[in-house]
Amino acid sequence: MATNLTIDGARLWDTLMETAAFGALPGGGIRRLALSDEDRVVRDWLGHACRDAGLTVAVDAVGNMFATRPGTDPDALPIAFGSHLDTQPNGGKFDGILGVLAGLEAIRTLNDAGVATRRPLTLVNWTNEEGARFAPAAMCSGVFAGEIDPAPMLAGTDRDGRTFAGELARILYRGDEPVGARRFAAFVELHIEQGPVLEAERQIIGIVTGGQGLLWFDGTITGRDSHAGTTPMTLRRDAMTAIAEVALAVEATAVAHGPAGVGTLGEAAVLPGARNTIPGAATFKAEFRHPDAGALTAMEAMLAERVAEIAARRQVRIEIERLWRKDPIAFDPLVIAAVEAAASPYPSRRMISGAGHDAFYVASTCPTGMIFVPCAGGISHNEEESATPADCTAGAQVLLDAVLHLDETLPATAT
Amino acid sequence: MATNLTIDGARLWDTLMETAAFGALPGGGIRRLALSDEDRVVRDWLGHACRDAGLTVAVDAVGNMFATRPGTDPDALPIAFGSHLDTQPNGGKFDGILGVLAGLEAIRTLNDAGVATRRPLTLVNWTNEEGARFAPAAMCSGVFAGEIDPAPMLAGTDRDGRTFAGELARILYRGDEPVGARRFAAFVELHIEQGPVLEAERQIIGIVTGGQGLLWFDGTITGRDSHAGTTPMTLRRDAMTAIAEVALAVEATAVAHGPAGVGTLGEAAVLPGARNTIPGAATFKAEFRHPDAGALTAMEAMLAERVAEIAARRQVRIEIERLWRKDPIAFDPLVIAAVEAAASPYPSRRMISGAGHDAFYVASTCPTGMIFVPCAGGISHNEEESATPADCTAGAQVLLDAVLHLDETLPATAT
Repeated sequence: MATNLTIDGARLWDTLMETAAFGALPGGGIRRLALSDEDRVVRDWLGHACRDAGLTVAVDAVGNMFATRPGTDPDALPIAFGSHLDTQPNGGKFDGILGVLAGLEAIRTLNDAGVATRRPLTLVNWTNEEGARFAPAAMCSGVFAGEIDPAPMLAGTDRDGRTFAGELARILYRGDEPVGARRFAAFVELHIEQGPVLEAERQIIGIVTGGQGLLWFDGTITGRDSHAGTTPMTLRRDAMTAIAEVALAVEATAVAHGPAGVGTLGEAAVLPGARNTIPGAATFKAEFRHPDAGALTAMEAMLAERVAEIAARRQVRIEIERLWRKDPIAFDPLVIAAVEAAASPYPSRRMISGAGHDAFYVASTCPTGMIFVPCAGGISHNEEESATPADCTAGAQVLLDAVLHLDETLPATAT
Repeated sequence: MATNLTIDGARLWDTLMETAAFGALPGGGIRRLALSDEDRVVRDWLGHACRDAGLTVAVDAVGNMFATRPGTDPDALPIAFGSHLDTQPNGGKFDGILGVLAGLEAIRTLNDAGVATRRPLTLVNWTNEEGARFAPAAMCSGVFAGEIDPAPMLAGTDRDGRTFAGELARILYRGDEPVGARRFAAFVELHIEQGPVLEAERQIIGIVTGGQGLLWFDGTITGRDSHAGTTPMTLRRDAMTAIAEVALAVEATAVAHGPAGVGTLGEAAVLPGARNTIPGAATFKAEFRHPDAGALTAMEAMLAERVAEIAARRQVRIEIERLWRKDPIAFDPLVIAAVEAAASPYPSRRMISGAGHDAFYVASTCPTGMIFVPCAGGISHNEEESATPADCTAGAQVLLDAVLHLDETLPATAT
């Protein structure tokens, strides 16, 4: 890397706090749902800031914003970076936002130093990453990647019956550019971890090597309702103790495939639900995640075996239905190497992203990687979401340096 | 016992089927809520049948019905027997009803044979045993025993805002007799077991020696909501796996105090309730029952110890609040002996009642006991509740013979 540029951490923090006013909540968080008035205001702010920084701003037909700084090679594909500015209904000030504003700060730093890159640089604000107002999540990076059909998305409605297309037009962000028309040489997304690992290990940078595979499954337990006073322990067919063992089997299966595997039984209902009736039925929703596809398959098989044993021993019927399987995503080795090189001044570790991100969809279109910084207690999707100025600065610095590293190392053929 | 009388099983069954028409449900059960029109009709039927059998019918101020056959000793206190004719909203044809109609059949059998007893015999129909329309259960035997204050009961309302007192007057069963004014030499209640033990052991008669003590407790678990994808197994504070271990600890504690101890976690809520969020909170309602008061105390202590260990290991807070403790009830040795003598022709076992009954309250006023017969699958409070004609006949026979045995063996001082 020829340059030795330093991010202006105070300026980055100022932009985070300034834009946090658009949809600010009393508890310190933000409600800035996709295509809301607040979303329009922060988009306008970003467009303004980008034009002030000399960038050319384009908007595609689903509202994705692309702000491009020219490179010295007019034929080279841009290196892109960014994330999203929309939030959850009770979201924080960093999820997505840090990735966009750190990208803006990287460009401002390059401008201040008068440094030109070979490739153009494109800052991206993806529309509706949260999926909180219009489902699904990461909607418009998914459309960009050709993995989500835009027609039903545009016709989709929010709780009040307003369509995505109508709201996009209303806030004046239905652009002319066909979705997915532009190509990138690479994409890098900086994001808060949304998990507790970096903080717990006192690391500052997570070098993200991929995304976990995911298995969603629903379960139904059928035992027999009976009288809590008159039914001896030996004659029970208790759906509560059965679901208890299933929850512990989900946990034990994840631990057996640790440390990378996780498993959660997050939703449970036990029926009929009376203190003095032994529950005869239960339902649950659960998931496994693992960065290795084979491990995910093994987890499913291990759980099935344990559940069969529980059902036989407790004389209940347990049915498990697999709803969805998504295979793991591996990020590009060149992008991972660029992030790792840029992270060298910081305590850092390679890690897998537990949450989903726009980068997962973009990864199917160009070499992609991610950078994580810690967030307090791993808390996200919550007004309490918090990241320190120092960590935000470090993340922006690693983003800038990784982009410059890619500008030097990406093969010229990546055009 | 001087007599060798035989119950008319067919006549008993006919009365069970005839009265089952009053509130009959399509599935074979009965909806005959306390003080409903259906309750009035069955009460009128009973009063009629009792007067036809030569009995004197009295009604007290909460609607308890007492039908008395004179004895040869006009100064002796009566031996009483009976149960209740009200049902659950979707009740069966036997719960309570068998005890009343078997008592009627016993009197008819004595009449047919022209047998006189020394003591008067009183058939009782207790008002509102089920507590389904007006809480609590066993209300009017509780008022009779002086353990429930009648004033709030009379003012209590059903779901539609109608008062107990108003409904009692409306169906013309608010009697003149002060509640609890009359005394008995003994009370015997025949009932279906409402549990699976007799059927599972192929016994016909349960000689009930007492009622279980009971401990009701509520629990709250506080962990931390977190992201199911990003939170490693080692950094979770999962309320679902915690409640799972608590449910299994309730079970293990009961088993450790077996075979008489039972424990049930019947109601559970896990929050916030989303597949991809590790639950940060849970609440539950649970109970222990045991026929020994000391064992009940030991169960509470054992659970507290296990719960403390679970909370510490899983880094969650678990609070358990004791709502109610009711000490075990021991029935009278003379009544138990009379039932045991009467049961000698049948496969029988001593047992503890798991459910509550009117006899539990009456036991504080006079020597009391109970007789159980099997019900299919232990199912009760359900239209599918079922007992065989042979078992009903056996129960009525044991009731008659136990009453005759008591008539001979109760000390004359029991006046």
